[in-house]
Amino acid sequence: MSGEDAPAQQQNDVDQKQEKPAEEPKAETPKADPAPAAAAEAAAAPPAAADKAPEEETFTYRALVLTGYGGYDKVKLQVKKGKPALKAGEVLVRVKACGLNFADLMARQGLYDRLPSPPVSPGMECSGVVEAVGEEVTDRKVGDKVMVLNRFGLWQEVAVAPASHTFLIPEGMSFEEAAALPVNYITAYMMLFDFGNLRPNQSVLIHAAAGGVGIAATQLCKTVKDVTVFGTASASKHETISEGGVTHAIDYRTKDYVEEVRKISPKGMDIILDPLGGSDTHKAYNLLKPMGKLITYGAANMLAGQKKNLLAVAKNWYHQFSIHTLSLIQGNKSVCGFHLGYLDGETELITQTMNTILDLYKQGKIKPRIDSTWHLEQVGDAMRKMQERNNIGKVILTTEPMPEEEKKEEPKKEDKKEDKKKEDKKKEDKKKDDGKKEEKKDDKKKEEPKKEEKKEEEKKEDAKKEEK
Amino acid sequence: MSGEDAPAQQQNDVDQKQEKPAEEPKAETPKADPAPAAAAEAAAAPPAAADKAPEEETFTYRALVLTGYGGYDKVKLQVKKGKPALKAGEVLVRVKACGLNFADLMARQGLYDRLPSPPVSPGMECSGVVEAVGEEVTDRKVGDKVMVLNRFGLWQEVAVAPASHTFLIPEGMSFEEAAALPVNYITAYMMLFDFGNLRPNQSVLIHAAAGGVGIAATQLCKTVKDVTVFGTASASKHETISEGGVTHAIDYRTKDYVEEVRKISPKGMDIILDPLGGSDTHKAYNLLKPMGKLITYGAANMLAGQKKNLLAVAKNWYHQFSIHTLSLIQGNKSVCGFHLGYLDGETELITQTMNTILDLYKQGKIKPRIDSTWHLEQVGDAMRKMQERNNIGKVILTTEPMPEEEKKEEPKKEDKKEDKKKEDKKKEDKKKDDGKKEEKKDDKKKEEPKKEEKKEEEKKEDAKKEEK
Repeated sequence: MSGEDAPAQQQNDVDQKQEKPAEEPKAETPKADPAPAAAAEAAAAPPAAADKAPEEETFTYRALVLTGYGGYDKVKLQVKKGKPALKAGEVLVRVKACGLNFADLMARQGLYDRLPSPPVSPGMECSGVVEAVGEEVTDRKVGDKVMVLNRFGLWQEVAVAPASHTFLIPEGMSFEEAAALPVNYITAYMMLFDFGNLRPNQSVLIHAAAGGVGIAATQLCKTVKDVTVFGTASASKHETISEGGVTHAIDYRTKDYVEEVRKISPKGMDIILDPLGGSDTHKAYNLLKPMGKLITYGAANMLAGQKKNLLAVAKNWYHQFSIHTLSLIQGNKSVCGFHLGYLDGETELITQTMNTILDLYKQGKIKPRIDSTWHLEQVGDAMRKMQERNNIGKVILTTEPMPEEEKKEEPKKEDKKEDKKKEDKKKEDKKKDDGKKEEKKDDKKKEEPKKEEKKEEEKKEDAKKEEK
Repeated sequence: MSGEDAPAQQQNDVDQKQEKPAEEPKAETPKADPAPAAAAEAAAAPPAAADKAPEEETFTYRALVLTGYGGYDKVKLQVKKGKPALKAGEVLVRVKACGLNFADLMARQGLYDRLPSPPVSPGMECSGVVEAVGEEVTDRKVGDKVMVLNRFGLWQEVAVAPASHTFLIPEGMSFEEAAALPVNYITAYMMLFDFGNLRPNQSVLIHAAAGGVGIAATQLCKTVKDVTVFGTASASKHETISEGGVTHAIDYRTKDYVEEVRKISPKGMDIILDPLGGSDTHKAYNLLKPMGKLITYGAANMLAGQKKNLLAVAKNWYHQFSIHTLSLIQGNKSVCGFHLGYLDGETELITQTMNTILDLYKQGKIKPRIDSTWHLEQVGDAMRKMQERNNIGKVILTTEPMPEEEKKEEPKKEDKKEDKKKEDKKKEDKKKDDGKKEEKKDDKKKEEPKKEEKKEEEKKEDAKKEEK
């Protein structure tokens, strides 16, 4: 996967215009800007009209771009030119890490209508440092460490978003954690506590309990007294999810999860989180107790293989759950649909929820679990890992440049998938331990050295793989 | 409408057997029984085997019986013989007042499947005094004032129910209030706080805001900070419902309520309570904000006229709301169905909810509003008043015997419906004032005198009608 130079016009049909060289650049006030060279130089230079053109020409950044619908290779790493102009209320963020979400996988196959047509940069969440602020931005300043939530466009080294879509990263949270938090935790929180109205002594069925939302939901369930969590995942992940708070781990690959749940809880569930869609939504509905709530938030069953699988899509549509009110009334049941991607107008609601989540983080009650971190060049592998359900926790992209030697080794990773899984598990355990240590530190503004350490680890592990 | 003698076998096909002369009667311990003559005499007599037969023969009580599906005249007042036997865990209640519910109207037309086939005594709620307790009953004793919630069978002078379906009437609550409380307040509470998850600053649309559930829901909304209540009702009821807490009263008969709501709240509603069904459920769904909850709990639109109206039923079915999960996901919406009649197995949940409601009553935050009280002989008129939406608050039946002179005047009531409405309004205002006074009293164990006063008022009002 090689970097390509994206023509500037390519992005122009996108809602959120990130490149408008013709537009008058907004005044920026980079006071204590700790950001990279290009911006710093620009700030140092006198703001004469003559200097604008050179700055915009010399400013380049790498960006992942969905070039068309299809397989993993449709997301390409390109180099964009020119500093994005900021509108009033927007900030420019130097991105450190990005989160991968299921919607990104759907989008790549053309199954997610919140992403504009290709070519377009995907990415709904990232973390980074504010590098410039637009007019009317009062609550963010250059140098702020932030996480960003946006409809798309965040898988880039430099991203533009409304300041209201950014949240300050709390002390002690790494950029990876910050990139892992927004989508999964807001989704899990709103489903469980807004629609689900989770209360003590209730039972919750979490599908894909080892996924990003699954782990977030499990942790959030544990903030309520005596909640019983049923979690589905393949057997190899049971130990990890049980440690994370799942009361009853169920291997959906070898067992009928409905039967397993009924064995333990004959009356059924109070809340079911359903990311699967299709026939699994029907099963979930029938598994609800009276006053139970089914919250469906995806159609993962549609994803079969790299490219759009028409049979899977048709099957999902055919089995799509449709409910009559009379059945709801007689069953005393609730069916809810959730997707954060369709809530982008609800800034106040999202901010409120995010503040609650960050409080829980500060109290040590939740902590994002990073499955693995990948370079932008490795986005295909990162997506594959998630789509093939080989992750436990969040899959993260880092904007750190990829060392030359790793690039050469890359293809080998795919050859030994099983070994890789084990390695990932080890790496995770190590990171978890690191995470615990980190929590104890009070002041850790310097993120860079830690990343370097991790990269050293990764190198060592790749070396180990070589030995096998 | 005259009392008829119901053959004892008539009730035998009913689930809850209330008359089983052949069965061995359970031992009863009527210690300080304050109940009527027949029972008191029986208690005074020595418990010899020879006395059983006479007691059962001499024990008679009036009961309303649905004799077939159809118009108001299908509910007949009959006299039943023999003291109902109690199973373990059951209590026998001398009924003072009964609540009318929409489900009773549906049931009369054969549209409610929770009522067994006629002949059967309807009635889901009543209040009264415990007259006997079955074996294993430990938390109720003879003389306890209770309200009762049951699937059916409570429109009788004497009713049998599981002790777990009874709730102690708090100090200061009249029998009418107690009969008005269970169904409406549990329904409103569970819809708003379990499914609806109502929180400060939210907006709620309450259809039929002057009905029993509507008034309960309005009062419950007011227990949460800064909730905006939109209530539909005909214009003549607006003053009353506004005083009761409705922020924006909307006359659904002369205006398009969707337009009216949008004018005030362009984004729509957080919660909508829908007792109507059919096309109104569609409107409600479209009126929801993101993260909004539609709670449908009836199909009042099916009720058109006294007897089952096939066109109305068909129309309701045709327009019945059916929702696909994809629409729910893209809208971030929730659709819930509620009906207390299908929750009769959920004793713990109901008891918990009832305790919360009774706490709110004791704190003075809620108070059932009685629209009118009718004698058992007047059940047809009572049902008509409710079905024609002429009530503001709860329609109650009292088991007090009806004075002869009222029986003669009865047909005249129907002649002057408009005048009657006005009179009802006046009567209500009077009762409301009475209610306020009553709240201030600390000890009011003697309910009887108040009833007598009311009857005096009714007589006076009937006399006024005569003058017109």
